Amino acid sequence: MILTVTLNTALDITYRVRNLTPHASHRVTEVTERPGGKGLNVARVLAALGHEATVTGFAGGTTGRALRERLAHTTGVVDALVPVEGTTRRTVAVVDATGDTTQLNEPGPAIAPAEWSAFQEVYEDLLGSASAVALCGSLPQGVPVGAYAGLVRAARAAHVPVLLDTSGEPLRRGVAARPDLVKPNTEELAELTGSHEPSRATRDVRRRGAHTVVASLGPEGLLAHTAEGRWRAAPPRRVRGNPTGAGDSAVAGLLSGLVERLPWPERLARAVALSTATVLAPVAGEFDRAVYEELVGRVRVTGEADAA
Amino acid sequence: MILTVTLNTALDITYRVRNLTPHASHRVTEVTERPGGKGLNVARVLAALGHEATVTGFAGGTTGRALRERLAHTTGVVDALVPVEGTTRRTVAVVDATGDTTQLNEPGPAIAPAEWSAFQEVYEDLLGSASAVALCGSLPQGVPVGAYAGLVRAARAAHVPVLLDTSGEPLRRGVAARPDLVKPNTEELAELTGSHEPSRATRDVRRRGAHTVVASLGPEGLLAHTAEGRWRAAPPRRVRGNPTGAGDSAVAGLLSGLVERLPWPERLARAVALSTATVLAPVAGEFDRAVYEELVGRVRVTGEADAA
Repeated sequence: MILTVTLNTALDITYRVRNLTPHASHRVTEVTERPGGKGLNVARVLAALGHEATVTGFAGGTTGRALRERLAHTTGVVDALVPVEGTTRRTVAVVDATGDTTQLNEPGPAIAPAEWSAFQEVYEDLLGSASAVALCGSLPQGVPVGAYAGLVRAARAAHVPVLLDTSGEPLRRGVAARPDLVKPNTEELAELTGSHEPSRATRDVRRRGAHTVVASLGPEGLLAHTAEGRWRAAPPRRVRGNPTGAGDSAVAGLLSGLVERLPWPERLARAVALSTATVLAPVAGEFDRAVYEELVGRVRVTGEADAA
Repeated sequence: MILTVTLNTALDITYRVRNLTPHASHRVTEVTERPGGKGLNVARVLAALGHEATVTGFAGGTTGRALRERLAHTTGVVDALVPVEGTTRRTVAVVDATGDTTQLNEPGPAIAPAEWSAFQEVYEDLLGSASAVALCGSLPQGVPVGAYAGLVRAARAAHVPVLLDTSGEPLRRGVAARPDLVKPNTEELAELTGSHEPSRATRDVRRRGAHTVVASLGPEGLLAHTAEGRWRAAPPRRVRGNPTGAGDSAVAGLLSGLVERLPWPERLARAVALSTATVLAPVAGEFDRAVYEELVGRVRVTGEADAA
């Protein structure tokens, strides 16, 4: 199975209203809820691609229970979340008639030292049956800033390929622990390296320790800097839509491609097609399978493999 | 005990944010949750006044469970809610630095005919040990518009004094079933009678069937039209604050005064003082006990008892 780690899981709630007006009262016409946090989104896409996915991280309180109940109804995703005393956060996305979203994000729970230790044990056990692992998203309070560095080292010790998708200081420290793959966006890349030039920045991230860097350039696709060569992969056309979850779909494309040992150009084409199909899906964070299948053969991949 | 009925219970969530800007992302700095819906608010104030309160109505889904867990920790309030298949609604109040509130109200669950029947049985059982009952708030989908009229008749048949606090057609039909007391605000009064003159309108509501009418005039206090006489009760000074729950506190004042057989001027003074202390409380819907105790002797009650 493929393991995804989400230390700061969330119950993602979407409200539809006619028009959001500050200091007014609004009737919500439609409510949707789904388990959220980057690693959970990645797992859902992996499952849709036919991979077995297991999710771990933390869940607690009534919100955590609601999240786990919904997860139990998600085919192909196994729940290995670790219970905590605190309450899992909610995120509320208020979508109005313009199609634009107003986002309200609750703070996550504080994690106790014993809970962090319990998680690490569960994680090491799960690595035993994982073909790859993705470490996704921000760290909740109480988890040390070097957490991902430790989890990267544990995966490497267990010979499990590890992908890291986070930002800020946890990313900086995680990269130094030599993960197989990092997937920063342009902002995270610039924050980490100080360079706004993606090609230079990805090279720098490799020097800092990442074996492979796949930078997400938003609507322009992906830029990959690997030990085997460098590629750019771009969608066949610019699309408009909701980018929520597009990065998580790209991670699922990269991970599944890794496990299936696809050549880099195919992995990147899959990641770009999934990401684009997510932007175009009517529900935030879902991907449109027909769009994905139509796009995957049409992603433009340029670049070259290094001479062996 | 005093029974309160809330057919459309809610989990009331309050988010504090710096500044609510449509189409932006916001970090919520503080989250509070409490069991809501008018009858639950009334019960909490009754309990704070030293009365035993029992709440009934509907609760379901993960939100209903969260509500009931919080209710279990509310001293003096007994949970007699009827479980339903649907999910109890949430209300989200987003308070920003201006102190103003943006309200998002989820739709309530639809109630199945069997659930409505189950409720009526529970209600009739509870009437057997009730000294008074309050019927509070809007009707959820699936409950017949004449629901309150039926519940009023059942209370009268059981010789339990019944207070009705609702609006629109459920109020119109409920009044015709001859409740002991209705507590409309000026808007509900005008909608029911077509008159914007409170004194004339309250007289009309009595003609329509209510034994007593106590109209809430917002910051100007209460106007009571009873079989024993007519009174006006006003707070000693105009106050500014959050009026959420002020009407529910007034209902608790009236109900407790009824059960304690206080003379009308004292009942009204209590209701106005509780209501004002709720407007002045830092947390929406709570009341400030010190303010209540200071105010209760200073409420100006004018009017006179009718000659016997």
